[in-house]
Amino acid sequence: MNPGAVTSVPDTEPAVAALVDILGDAVVTDPDRMLAYRRDQSLLTPAGMPLALVRARDTDDVVATLTVAHRHGIPVVTRGAGTGLAGAANALDGGIVLSVEKMNAILEIDPESRTATVQPGVINGDLAAAAAEQGLWYVPDPGSRAVSTIGGNLATNAGGTCCAKYGVTADHVARIKAVLADGQIIHTGATTRKNVAGLNLTQLLVGSEGTLAVIVEATVRLRAAATAAATVVASFPDTAQAVAAVLAIREQAEPCLVELMDRTTIAAVEDMTHMGLDQTAGALLLVQCDGRDAAAEAEVCALACTAAGATEVYDTADPVEGEEFMAARRVALTALERCGSTLLDDLAVPVPRLPEMLAAVETIAARHDLLIGTFGHAADGNLHPTIVFDAADESVARRARQAFDEMVAECLALGGSISGEHGIGVLKQPYLETQVGTVERALMHRIKAAFDPTGILNPGRGI
Amino acid sequence: MNPGAVTSVPDTEPAVAALVDILGDAVVTDPDRMLAYRRDQSLLTPAGMPLALVRARDTDDVVATLTVAHRHGIPVVTRGAGTGLAGAANALDGGIVLSVEKMNAILEIDPESRTATVQPGVINGDLAAAAAEQGLWYVPDPGSRAVSTIGGNLATNAGGTCCAKYGVTADHVARIKAVLADGQIIHTGATTRKNVAGLNLTQLLVGSEGTLAVIVEATVRLRAAATAAATVVASFPDTAQAVAAVLAIREQAEPCLVELMDRTTIAAVEDMTHMGLDQTAGALLLVQCDGRDAAAEAEVCALACTAAGATEVYDTADPVEGEEFMAARRVALTALERCGSTLLDDLAVPVPRLPEMLAAVETIAARHDLLIGTFGHAADGNLHPTIVFDAADESVARRARQAFDEMVAECLALGGSISGEHGIGVLKQPYLETQVGTVERALMHRIKAAFDPTGILNPGRGI
Repeated sequence: MNPGAVTSVPDTEPAVAALVDILGDAVVTDPDRMLAYRRDQSLLTPAGMPLALVRARDTDDVVATLTVAHRHGIPVVTRGAGTGLAGAANALDGGIVLSVEKMNAILEIDPESRTATVQPGVINGDLAAAAAEQGLWYVPDPGSRAVSTIGGNLATNAGGTCCAKYGVTADHVARIKAVLADGQIIHTGATTRKNVAGLNLTQLLVGSEGTLAVIVEATVRLRAAATAAATVVASFPDTAQAVAAVLAIREQAEPCLVELMDRTTIAAVEDMTHMGLDQTAGALLLVQCDGRDAAAEAEVCALACTAAGATEVYDTADPVEGEEFMAARRVALTALERCGSTLLDDLAVPVPRLPEMLAAVETIAARHDLLIGTFGHAADGNLHPTIVFDAADESVARRARQAFDEMVAECLALGGSISGEHGIGVLKQPYLETQVGTVERALMHRIKAAFDPTGILNPGRGI
Repeated sequence: MNPGAVTSVPDTEPAVAALVDILGDAVVTDPDRMLAYRRDQSLLTPAGMPLALVRARDTDDVVATLTVAHRHGIPVVTRGAGTGLAGAANALDGGIVLSVEKMNAILEIDPESRTATVQPGVINGDLAAAAAEQGLWYVPDPGSRAVSTIGGNLATNAGGTCCAKYGVTADHVARIKAVLADGQIIHTGATTRKNVAGLNLTQLLVGSEGTLAVIVEATVRLRAAATAAATVVASFPDTAQAVAAVLAIREQAEPCLVELMDRTTIAAVEDMTHMGLDQTAGALLLVQCDGRDAAAEAEVCALACTAAGATEVYDTADPVEGEEFMAARRVALTALERCGSTLLDDLAVPVPRLPEMLAAVETIAARHDLLIGTFGHAADGNLHPTIVFDAADESVARRARQAFDEMVAECLALGGSISGEHGIGVLKQPYLETQVGTVERALMHRIKAAFDPTGILNPGRGI
């Protein structure tokens, strides 16, 4: 039996009637209007045809939706902006899609306690901008921040480029208000910086991909305003030297960003931008330092790059110039997407294992005659090898999936994690038990049952 | 068997026989030899008479103990060094005390991945020293670090003075190996810095006070060697001005330590040490900054103290001199203990609420005619109001408990947490549901059941 699957046959007609009765035009059942809510941004993941879409306006709507779904045994897939990359927000056949995108109010920014309380549909970038207006900084910066929601960021424990120094989304959340499968509301965590009262429900909800509860409000921590960053750009003959630089840097500095691009990615970016990247380089490293001592710290990083074998090193304390270099990294995925369909992976290995992981990606690309561009967050050991292929060609698509499998297997062999920041969703389900273990996965399912005894919340995803 | 006897009464004799049979002289049943294992360091918490003490030598011993306990329905209280302050490690009548103090091997320090893998009985200070030998830093520094174990630190999510900048024990753990109530072994987490595969079992175990599983191994993260700290000492006419300084400091700097002592604590420390503290001061603030720019950052903090109304401010980049000032804070509890029995509280409030909390403590002390000295981690809003009283005088002890209750109530009214770093144990049980909520507490109990279906692990504690 598929763990987490809903076993009873749902009684769908009365369920939809009950939803419409309570929620009115927040309920959409027109298949055309539901189309845009069927998928996230992942490839190779199945998406079902939902029974209904609920566009929740407030917590009451979420409670009503779950109460009906619980009573009728109908699966519920919660979604924010649908920018996920693992299929966790794809609709299930005969299920309800619960969109929280309309719950997008920033309820409070409290400069004194340095917290923001938001609804789940708030766009990450909107929160960051609102905080900045008050001289504060919402740190987590997933690549999707201009469009992705805080609810989705929490559900997947989204990363970003700042994690090397400042951690992931989980490290910046203080409290969560959520609705359990049966409609009961819970509040977790505390606004205090330290709190050891009871079990850590907050960290259990973060990254649970909609399988435990529906987040309807979150209080996140803010920091003092970000300082200007100093930037280092270094090109290396090969990725191993770039990683050696990363290891040397962490002995002497604590950069807020350490991003890596391989030869394939450099070429794609240069083709698109003509910004003058060194196309003979095997790897490009981008490093940023912030804080009171940013310029001096960046110089230390630049020296470490030179010592590790960089052929070109440039550092600047000018934020505008730094931002221009950062643009190269920001467009990496877009540049690769211009070359074909992309299957973006999300693997994390211990930093010293990065050279082996990068070499394995190259070997796998050659073996399957595929283009794979790799970029990622080097200081976290978190890589995004991106397979570029013709999705219309079935044999190529099959090879792409095969290469994907092999990269994941190599990552596990190196003591890595099958997902650093995108989540498990549907895409990584086949590998989950290999990483976490059979006893552990069974335990996760029992924990899910403690939140969701009838298994209606995103069944078959995440865990 | 007595007909009609309750069948769930544990069948203790065969259980002890089974333990002795498997574990030999690791099992102690002599009441005198068990005495030292009946209590932690908390006052006002009941301690039972255990059936047996198991001094586990390895994971197999833990598995055997839990397998027997599970089969016979006997409660198990796990303990490290017994330095807890909430009674979580106190024995239960007719239960097993499972000591992991002999499992004290540092299994590996890996400078490349910057992790240490240790058994639970390793003393925090021993790990820190071993890491320092390799030029690395194990950051969490609870006041008990010279004697408390990593297992206990994890079980209570211990804090310390470094949390303002570097977080609590939870923020430094990568992996946990633990034994479930039925003897099954689980591994949680990953050594990679980012990992979103499945539910966060690691953070669920941290702070769970022995209620979910028995930690038998942990991999913790290390940082690059600590840099020399620059120190600021400032005295203020009253605590409100000291807190104003804390709020001003965080706008401009990120100190690694911000400790506060009130008038009563200053007097007790001065009486003991004659180190020349300003006894006319209403509050003393100790601030330390580290990193590349420590001295300049400390100067910024010193200026903020002056601006906030400090009457004396002294700053030094000399680590030896800084350590002398820190000694005043380190002996705070010892100095108060010289004045009588102490009931140490552990309350966390949002930092801007500190003046109200401190004022409330003074009011409560006056109302009950008690001496209460307060010190704590000001940047975290985490205070340890310490009631000094004559425990032999029943009426005074009653007033002390009453004052304790009132301080906790005031903390909750200020949006605080009933425990910042000591845990709930037995001591804080009466207040837990008020903080976390009824639905939430019931959920915690269901989660416990997912780990421990028969409820043998530290029942009635923690959650």
